[in-house]
Amino acid sequence: RINPDRLWDTLMEMAKIGPGVAGGNNRQTLTDEDGEGRHLFKKWCEEAGMTVGVDKMGTMFAYREGTDPSLPPVYMGSHLDTQPTGGKFDGVLGVLGGLEVVRTLNDLGIKTKHPIVVTNWTNEEGTRFAPAMLASGVFAGEHTLEWAYDRVDAKGNRFGDELERIGWKGDKEVGNRPIKAFFELHIEQGPILEDEGIDIGVVTHGQGLWWLEVTLTGNDAHTGSTPMHKRRNAGLGLARVTELVHEVAMDYQPDAVGAIGHIEVYPNSRNVIPGEVVFTIDIRSPNAEVLNEMRARIEQGIELIAEALDISSDVEAVGHFEPVTFDENCVKAVRDAAERLGYSHRDIVSGAGHDACWINRLAPTAMVFCPCVDGLSHNEAEEISKEWAGAGADVLFHAVVETAEI
Amino acid sequence: RINPDRLWDTLMEMAKIGPGVAGGNNRQTLTDEDGEGRHLFKKWCEEAGMTVGVDKMGTMFAYREGTDPSLPPVYMGSHLDTQPTGGKFDGVLGVLGGLEVVRTLNDLGIKTKHPIVVTNWTNEEGTRFAPAMLASGVFAGEHTLEWAYDRVDAKGNRFGDELERIGWKGDKEVGNRPIKAFFELHIEQGPILEDEGIDIGVVTHGQGLWWLEVTLTGNDAHTGSTPMHKRRNAGLGLARVTELVHEVAMDYQPDAVGAIGHIEVYPNSRNVIPGEVVFTIDIRSPNAEVLNEMRARIEQGIELIAEALDISSDVEAVGHFEPVTFDENCVKAVRDAAERLGYSHRDIVSGAGHDACWINRLAPTAMVFCPCVDGLSHNEAEEISKEWAGAGADVLFHAVVETAEI
Ligand SMILES: NC(=O)NCCC(=O)O
Ligand SMILES: NC(=O)NCCC(=O)O
Repeated sequence: RINPDRLWDTLMEMAKIGPGVAGGNNRQTLTDEDGEGRHLFKKWCEEAGMTVGVDKMGTMFAYREGTDPSLPPVYMGSHLDTQPTGGKFDGVLGVLGGLEVVRTLNDLGIKTKHPIVVTNWTNEEGTRFAPAMLASGVFAGEHTLEWAYDRVDAKGNRFGDELERIGWKGDKEVGNRPIKAFFELHIEQGPILEDEGIDIGVVTHGQGLWWLEVTLTGNDAHTGSTPMHKRRNAGLGLARVTELVHEVAMDYQPDAVGAIGHIEVYPNSRNVIPGEVVFTIDIRSPNAEVLNEMRARIEQGIELIAEALDISSDVEAVGHFEPVTFDENCVKAVRDAAERLGYSHRDIVSGAGHDACWINRLAPTAMVFCPCVDGLSHNEAEEISKEWAGAGADVLFHAVVETAEI
Repeated sequence: RINPDRLWDTLMEMAKIGPGVAGGNNRQTLTDEDGEGRHLFKKWCEEAGMTVGVDKMGTMFAYREGTDPSLPPVYMGSHLDTQPTGGKFDGVLGVLGGLEVVRTLNDLGIKTKHPIVVTNWTNEEGTRFAPAMLASGVFAGEHTLEWAYDRVDAKGNRFGDELERIGWKGDKEVGNRPIKAFFELHIEQGPILEDEGIDIGVVTHGQGLWWLEVTLTGNDAHTGSTPMHKRRNAGLGLARVTELVHEVAMDYQPDAVGAIGHIEVYPNSRNVIPGEVVFTIDIRSPNAEVLNEMRARIEQGIELIAEALDISSDVEAVGHFEPVTFDENCVKAVRDAAERLGYSHRDIVSGAGHDACWINRLAPTAMVFCPCVDGLSHNEAEEISKEWAGAGADVLFHAVVETAEI
């Protein structure tokens, strides 16, 4: 078994970097705080006898030798970047849980045949630079390196420039590595495990997603002196699209979710009718057909809404992944580990996207979920217990050791 | 008659300070650009033989002596601050039109019995610091100086500190001045005069206004993994309130307008359900009863919307003025001037708020409107013709000279 106290202390130590305003974290990707977190993780990995390589997307690979170096390594990991008002565990648990697995192997003097690699994938969250899971997406061949470098944040900073600025643009090629299997430990970020009092979620599938960036263009004009019938109010368009997204998601219950999280209003002045709004629709479903139907209905609806308000609309897909089915054998390794360790478990579908969803295209992959309080995530109040974290890391440990073979 | 070419050149010279991104201006109140515009105006006033005083709100008073210094001065003016994406004429025409009136008096060697004062009121627009017409409001005794100093912008800067920073906190007491009458020349900012092909709007009334700053608080949570029925989506609340404000305004046509121009979403991340939105509702009517009915309906509606979404709501009035009836004699002076000069004219209600609305509480006041292209204002594309500007300034000239007596 892993050492839950050491894991917890390590989590709390990392949480000191990029503290939030309400007990959580703001360690957004490619900020100085992200850089600081990476240095700390690297130091820990080296202390645990690993060597750390960095690829051109900034993804970190901490390598523990196997007894047979010709065999492909078993990977585990997640991400250290957070939301602007994020929690201490989303992503971080999977990276530091991986570190804890290696520390435990060291404690027990266990050598595995296959090498083991712990990864910290760059820009999983996608807040500063859309899309989410950017580095694992390049790794999996979904995006090119050049395209990823050209992503810009709200201030116009390029991903490539920011990666260089914080000093974490590595020299290793992105992707093209032999991988025996990939395991990602993560908090559920939803309420199911806690509600049912279950220790471990064996993740069999992941929802698919579309991020649709919508620009509605009307005409900015005076709120007081412009008659109602002369208005071309892009803000009213935003309101109607928000309601539409909600309605469409409700129509496909329980197989769909939808919301708008990011909104920019121009010129954003109290006495100016919004002339332009830019916002991103987030729709998801575990069912590919439903997901695409939702998208079609929303795009048609936006056209009708724009027409009725005499405004124009533009829709661009800025993030997408298909629903994912994880590898049967890896899923079984997770389920067997939970069973063997005596943890209660159930199969579960991931509501969120994860680096594992991209890596699953390249190599056999599975995920381990542990519960989180009230299912709350992407919130500074995100919380888990030391026991939940420990159980998750235990299952990760057993699944990885079994796959890496002693 | 005034010199329309000189007026136009002066307008174009001022427009060089704080240029916008699309041909208009961004010379928001208490920015460096506002400071620069003030220096230029001061220089022009002194060249025209006036002395310039500044009060503790930063309002500028350019003084031209009368032949009988014991008589109360006739005031005219407006504001030099602009919207973030504002036009070249909103406010500026009234200040520089006043300057043109004095320049014309100088050209013609006319001395008036009453002194004449040209004013530049601070923070008319209200974008950086709510409410609008802040300095004229303090001048009229509607707000205290301390309260005005404590207004903060989106970055948390205090009005009082910013006024000092740009070096325009004057030493003169705010208000308590003898005023014979106040005349404000302004662009209509609406479509009526242009649509009807009329030169001059004789402003008899002004609409009343409420600015209601609404905070809706739900809970930020993951857009993917949070089931629809567990969401407390403040963004959906914003959508419903936006639609409500529109519906309520439509119900009172043609005696009402309503919109939401300013919106902040927290944490504003693509994959986070908004946990908080803060926005300002702008509702207006020339009818006090209608205005208050609108407010009541909207406040009730917000409560119901919040309840249905399991979010909380808070509504704070951050701007208000009652509908205004301008002074009969001053209005007549404007109408007579237009008539005498042979300009077509009609009585009109101001859709926007103006410094004149506050000064009307202290002293006989009226306004002169000239048309603007497509009724467009609070937009960089705001446009007027040299002839329209000249006609407006001519009417201002005649109304002021008649009131200041030769
Ligand atoms: N796990 C997680 O929060 N990932 C961010 C990408 C997403 O929005 O699903
Ligand atoms: N004239 C003008 O645009 N004033 C700004 C205050 C308002 O919103 O009416």
